Amino acid sequence: MNEVSPIAGGDAVAIARILANDHVADIVEALNREPRELASELLAELPFERAVEIFDQPELDDAPELIESLPRDKAGRLLAAMSVDRAADVVRELSEPARTDLLHAITPALRHTILAILGYPEGSAGSIMTTEYVSVPPDWTVARTLDHIREVERTRETIYAIYVIDPQSRTLLRAFGLRRLIASAPDAQIMAVTPDKAPVTVPPLMDVEQVAQLIRKYDLLAVPVVENDRIIGLVTVDDILDTMIEETTEDVHRFGGMEALDEPYMKMGFFSMIGKRGGWLCALFLGEMLTASAMQGYEHELESAIVLTLFIPLIMSSGGNSGSQATSLVIRALALREISLGDWWRVAVRELPAGIVLGAMLGLVGVARITLWQYAGFYDYGPHWELIAATVGMALIGIVTFGSLTGSMLPFILKRIGFDPASASAPFVATLVDVTGLVIYFSVALVILRGTLL
Amino acid sequence: MNEVSPIAGGDAVAIARILANDHVADIVEALNREPRELASELLAELPFERAVEIFDQPELDDAPELIESLPRDKAGRLLAAMSVDRAADVVRELSEPARTDLLHAITPALRHTILAILGYPEGSAGSIMTTEYVSVPPDWTVARTLDHIREVERTRETIYAIYVIDPQSRTLLRAFGLRRLIASAPDAQIMAVTPDKAPVTVPPLMDVEQVAQLIRKYDLLAVPVVENDRIIGLVTVDDILDTMIEETTEDVHRFGGMEALDEPYMKMGFFSMIGKRGGWLCALFLGEMLTASAMQGYEHELESAIVLTLFIPLIMSSGGNSGSQATSLVIRALALREISLGDWWRVAVRELPAGIVLGAMLGLVGVARITLWQYAGFYDYGPHWELIAATVGMALIGIVTFGSLTGSMLPFILKRIGFDPASASAPFVATLVDVTGLVIYFSVALVILRGTLL
Repeated sequence: MNEVSPIAGGDAVAIARILANDHVADIVEALNREPRELASELLAELPFERAVEIFDQPELDDAPELIESLPRDKAGRLLAAMSVDRAADVVRELSEPARTDLLHAITPALRHTILAILGYPEGSAGSIMTTEYVSVPPDWTVARTLDHIREVERTRETIYAIYVIDPQSRTLLRAFGLRRLIASAPDAQIMAVTPDKAPVTVPPLMDVEQVAQLIRKYDLLAVPVVENDRIIGLVTVDDILDTMIEETTEDVHRFGGMEALDEPYMKMGFFSMIGKRGGWLCALFLGEMLTASAMQGYEHELESAIVLTLFIPLIMSSGGNSGSQATSLVIRALALREISLGDWWRVAVRELPAGIVLGAMLGLVGVARITLWQYAGFYDYGPHWELIAATVGMALIGIVTFGSLTGSMLPFILKRIGFDPASASAPFVATLVDVTGLVIYFSVALVILRGTLL
Repeated sequence: MNEVSPIAGGDAVAIARILANDHVADIVEALNREPRELASELLAELPFERAVEIFDQPELDDAPELIESLPRDKAGRLLAAMSVDRAADVVRELSEPARTDLLHAITPALRHTILAILGYPEGSAGSIMTTEYVSVPPDWTVARTLDHIREVERTRETIYAIYVIDPQSRTLLRAFGLRRLIASAPDAQIMAVTPDKAPVTVPPLMDVEQVAQLIRKYDLLAVPVVENDRIIGLVTVDDILDTMIEETTEDVHRFGGMEALDEPYMKMGFFSMIGKRGGWLCALFLGEMLTASAMQGYEHELESAIVLTLFIPLIMSSGGNSGSQATSLVIRALALREISLGDWWRVAVRELPAGIVLGAMLGLVGVARITLWQYAGFYDYGPHWELIAATVGMALIGIVTFGSLTGSMLPFILKRIGFDPASASAPFVATLVDVTGLVIYFSVALVILRGTLL
């Protein structure tokens, strides 16, 4: 594995060594560690070809700002030389007037292509596709196709996926891998050596996660994006890897109960981070305030049986924990398409008994704890301690069942109303369950303890 | 996109159509929906080549059981024809005596290779590598290399990554893509057209997530696994996609506060699922019991100021929520290697002020809520309501700060002692924070309310 060589600010020898020997990904990593001004100076000094390679890496931080800092004509030439999907990525983030300026510094054809890609919503196949793919007409031979690939190789993001397109209608006829070409006789006809099957394709609006599932399922290196039977671009497996890692990060952040950070944790500004966390934290806090209102409603019961308060944190957290488990299961099963929106009732039918069994387990542990403490003399729960134990046990069954059901249904509800199911965070579920948990606990107490403590 | 055609149990015409036309991934999907007995019968009837293709798909459920249900000699031939990394996967899950029987039904060389792969721990590069790669000596030309690839193509998992190996020492000299070969003149020497750089390689014990990061960083289609400068296998991007999706599922489940399910949610047996959830739920419950003990310790304060109990759920949940946010941030940053174990103090230095600011935000909201309720007459918090509001506000600052610090440090601690940082689940953090949260709350109350309510 290549060692990462740091750019020692201004050390010309070190820089020259890096530029000559290092993998472009290592250079990007080194540039990302430098202040933006220094990175910008270094990029301006680089040979043009090397700068293009560097800007082609999606890992380069602040690419739009770096492009803006270059002279407009050089920036325009860079955009034109970059792979078109990366160029679109950069243009997406440019601020005005640089964006308009740069779009006018490139050819109308490229401008048109970039704007078309930008027209697709973020997270769709269209938004990450490249339009630079290899296509050939159906009457070519294997040798001629190979010659063509050799000619266009430098301007294509991938040459491992090749498409046969009808020259009149531009309809996609076949899709095959370079492997097939290598394995075939040079004088064979393309149509004779490629599989006579409908190629796996995706529409431009398909969600990237779904595209990833397809690429994985069919073991593809790229999948063509098709609209009205015509190929408009292709999504490669590297784009998918990048996107999957980003989406996973977003999901983990959301599941932790916050807005997704779009930047690395250590690089993000302190106050932007506070903004992303504070919003949800306040929203959850406001929701959780209902617990104070619920407790106020049970003020009389609290005063007569102060012993009940001892178990409030224990009982509430159990509901939250069982809800968090159910939510994480359902979020992941939905993401993997093991279940779909219509399966909500099958999940509910599974979670109901699961909640009852898990609640009964915790209930037994809770009753055992109270009994043990009472007999061992660690604490005196009063003359009606059996009733208190029964209240805690029954409440746990109710709350864990309610938690499992709520946690498993919340992702379905969010998905149904158009949100990301991963927004059903553990804290969100816990907040939902807490208020109801209190009501369940005090309701059980009112039934079991009426006439004795209450 | 191919439509998925269901196998109508026993409908010969439908089955024939599927086998003739469908992509192997669709057949696997259809087989997965059938009971294992029927899947086994269908597989036994298939042409051998087709069965090999099907068993080569990692998505096939119950592959070990299906292999076991076949006659031993056919099973042995299947194993030998499958790609060696898949064969090792299947053998890993076989039960005895089938495992020993089958390992003796294959050639000693293959047995040796499979056992070597199985010797690497799960989740390591060695455990998912294939040993079927394309390698050539350094004195070959481009044309000769292409001819060789054509010859061995059928027995190699990928031909897109090619390795130049010293014939005497077996040292890895160069690594390059098929693309480079296609773009070069046929009579050029291999060593002249391939980059004179140390290839990116991984050691067999490297964690798969780290391999994924490298493959993504350097935009590779495969990475060689190297031990003592010798190539012992390679990991392809499809293996990485599969593994990443599995690892993400495991992380989401763990972060939800349970053991990772190894099977799809709807397919898993009810009681195995209860086992995976119940263990952690009980452990968390036992930990949370400390809250009851803590509350018992503050019994006197609870009796004199029952109004304090109203805010217990609100305050505790805020600590858990801020902890869950910090944990999700750190888990992900560790997984992406944005930070490493030694950066714990940099994270702590960031989380301390973040916790204080976030806590102050919630504290202000809390004080405002109490003030509003008091003035509007929704609830009477008594003559000392200002002191109660101050207690809630100060306690929130302390608890949110403590939650952020605990949540951010837990993944580091778990990683340090050899656990997966993703085991720092939201419920785990909440449980840790709850007990301390109560202690902080009552300590603040004792300071502020001494001489008035307490």
